[in-house]
Amino acid sequence: MDYRFSSKVNRLQSSAERDIMKWTGGKEIISLAGGLPAEELLPLEAVREAAGRVFKNGSGVLQYGLTEGYLPLREQLGQRMASKGMPVSPDEMLLTTGSQQAIDLAVRALAEPGSAVLVENPANIAGLQVFHLNGLHVIPVECDTDGMIIEEAERLIRQHKPALVYVVPTFGSPTGRAWTTQRRRGLVECCRRHGIPIVEDDPYGEIKFDANAHYPTLFSIEGKAGGGVVLYTSTLTHTVAPAVRLGWVMGDRDVIRMMAKAKQAADLQSSALDQQIVDQLLRHFPLDRHARKLGKSYGQRMQHMQSLLRQLGMRDASWAEPQGGLFLWLKLPEGLDGEALLRCAVMKGVTFVPGSTFFVREPIRNTARLNYTYTSGERMAAGIARLGEAISEFVARS
Amino acid sequence: MDYRFSSKVNRLQSSAERDIMKWTGGKEIISLAGGLPAEELLPLEAVREAAGRVFKNGSGVLQYGLTEGYLPLREQLGQRMASKGMPVSPDEMLLTTGSQQAIDLAVRALAEPGSAVLVENPANIAGLQVFHLNGLHVIPVECDTDGMIIEEAERLIRQHKPALVYVVPTFGSPTGRAWTTQRRRGLVECCRRHGIPIVEDDPYGEIKFDANAHYPTLFSIEGKAGGGVVLYTSTLTHTVAPAVRLGWVMGDRDVIRMMAKAKQAADLQSSALDQQIVDQLLRHFPLDRHARKLGKSYGQRMQHMQSLLRQLGMRDASWAEPQGGLFLWLKLPEGLDGEALLRCAVMKGVTFVPGSTFFVREPIRNTARLNYTYTSGERMAAGIARLGEAISEFVARS
Repeated sequence: MDYRFSSKVNRLQSSAERDIMKWTGGKEIISLAGGLPAEELLPLEAVREAAGRVFKNGSGVLQYGLTEGYLPLREQLGQRMASKGMPVSPDEMLLTTGSQQAIDLAVRALAEPGSAVLVENPANIAGLQVFHLNGLHVIPVECDTDGMIIEEAERLIRQHKPALVYVVPTFGSPTGRAWTTQRRRGLVECCRRHGIPIVEDDPYGEIKFDANAHYPTLFSIEGKAGGGVVLYTSTLTHTVAPAVRLGWVMGDRDVIRMMAKAKQAADLQSSALDQQIVDQLLRHFPLDRHARKLGKSYGQRMQHMQSLLRQLGMRDASWAEPQGGLFLWLKLPEGLDGEALLRCAVMKGVTFVPGSTFFVREPIRNTARLNYTYTSGERMAAGIARLGEAISEFVARS
Repeated sequence: MDYRFSSKVNRLQSSAERDIMKWTGGKEIISLAGGLPAEELLPLEAVREAAGRVFKNGSGVLQYGLTEGYLPLREQLGQRMASKGMPVSPDEMLLTTGSQQAIDLAVRALAEPGSAVLVENPANIAGLQVFHLNGLHVIPVECDTDGMIIEEAERLIRQHKPALVYVVPTFGSPTGRAWTTQRRRGLVECCRRHGIPIVEDDPYGEIKFDANAHYPTLFSIEGKAGGGVVLYTSTLTHTVAPAVRLGWVMGDRDVIRMMAKAKQAADLQSSALDQQIVDQLLRHFPLDRHARKLGKSYGQRMQHMQSLLRQLGMRDASWAEPQGGLFLWLKLPEGLDGEALLRCAVMKGVTFVPGSTFFVREPIRNTARLNYTYTSGERMAAGIARLGEAISEFVARS
């Protein structure tokens, strides 16, 4: 039969980075595309031991759990959040299948098809995909190196009355930039004035190269969950492991309750087994120390990538040195189209994500997002060398 | 701030059975409400061993997986489906967070807000919740003891041109009924004539009391995935364990591809860890034998519940003996409202789901869904005795 697909799913672009993961399947091509962690740093032994402790609790561990998520884990995560200046109670928190699902549930609870949503320009693809799937009208807000330009945000809020504002203020994809504290305050105040919810997506905030640097979350700036405008979501994908898909979202109790209702319909609950394993893990595993170790290691990889890029001696290429996160945002020489470069780079055996993917309207085409966490050492050197070959060949050809 | 919630989530009723699970939290109240498996029959040791084998594969097991799901598991499930007369290739299958998510993704791929969907009357609450969350117009189709009345379905298809038809033909909730083969054929032929996709939800088909009884799925009757109208979804929730949240959906390759795009936006992927554990489990665990054991044990529990109900000697109460699945659909004496009875029953220390929950329009109020899989022996006897007290007290009072 001929299927008629919904207008939303028809418009949905598959994420370039997931597609690249699929064609490369991995092996021969060096990937600077995805946001994958270094496999050798994943805490396999700690997860294995945590699972062992869970299985000792008897067959009840295989039973259904609550839609809201395993209560002892919500309590632990709540304490962890409190230690970072974000106190919440368990009924102000919902566990999700990664923070991706938290964004989807927030939209399903707070927006109608056709509602406007404000995003950074360029914006995280995870958010953009959710907004397209839900038929939202996505409005990009200009940003500079300090973060979102608040006057622009306010003008667009007045104009479009958005259902929500979606931001990744700390080391967000693709730019890796951290907003200044002033811009963070500015957005919270602006959204409070206008009564517009903010979804603050913070998947990378714990991956920082200077362990003592402090990037206050919007949630901590607002200082309360009840009655607040900020919904905060984060994940253990980058600090523990992607395979357990453990995200959480916290905010006003009524919003969390509505999101839980949406989750009940969407998938009833996330894996109760994973939630119990992570609960056991957090009881014994020094997560803060591990995050510092990751920050240090990823910082070294970023430095290595920077020095390799400098050695390419590209004229007119530039980047801002990231202070954390997974990505370096490369401005390519004027006139060099990131998408065209990718086709050439794949032939050389290296991939990245062309910057155009992250723009809602007119893309800045001479941009590329490079990941420095998944590869290292000689493999990274080979990847950047291949990228350099592609660039010089491309520049030579055009 | 004052949040404005989306019209869809506002309309969404929390599932009575999940709410009851929450108030009872379990202990003192005997639950005949949820569709929970017998905890003592969950294969803890086999899951533990499977997890042990996964962790031996190195830290790569904690990495991201594919949105479509772990390929070796899709291959194994494909072989399993082929052995049941439903051959599919891995790209005709998507792994999901339970079959609940498969229904949601099918709707997101195939329907628009306001689209019509045809359902059985009464219908499975999992489906109803998804349709309400997505703003669909739900049209109930009359059913009798043989299943959906095909002439009615065809009339409503002509009238409403639904985006899809959703059915649970084998031991569906709440009635526990199995459709006749003729009705199954009838619906497939009708939907093929009109080019309307069917979502066949089959969570309970393997829990059958007569191991030799055969209930052909709509998917096997149509006999092909490519170009077919039937999307088939099932789950390991009832045959292995709820906590691993392992569902799958299979059908035409293009539909599966569109559903995978929707899933990428909705939650990127389900737990890759659980998928690998289940893959290892299925390599060693005799699932068919385990399902037969469950069928036998649950059949005994159903018989026990029947004999306890008979001993209550209720006038004008009746039920059809289920041949499998998790539920007994009780017709209460005329004039006895299931919702009122529940309030009284909770005071006595027993819960069930009032039948009105499962009707889209005019409910048949003197109905109740009783679960016989979670409790057994003296606990079940106590539960039915408390139910009997509530009924006689209620009848006496009114």
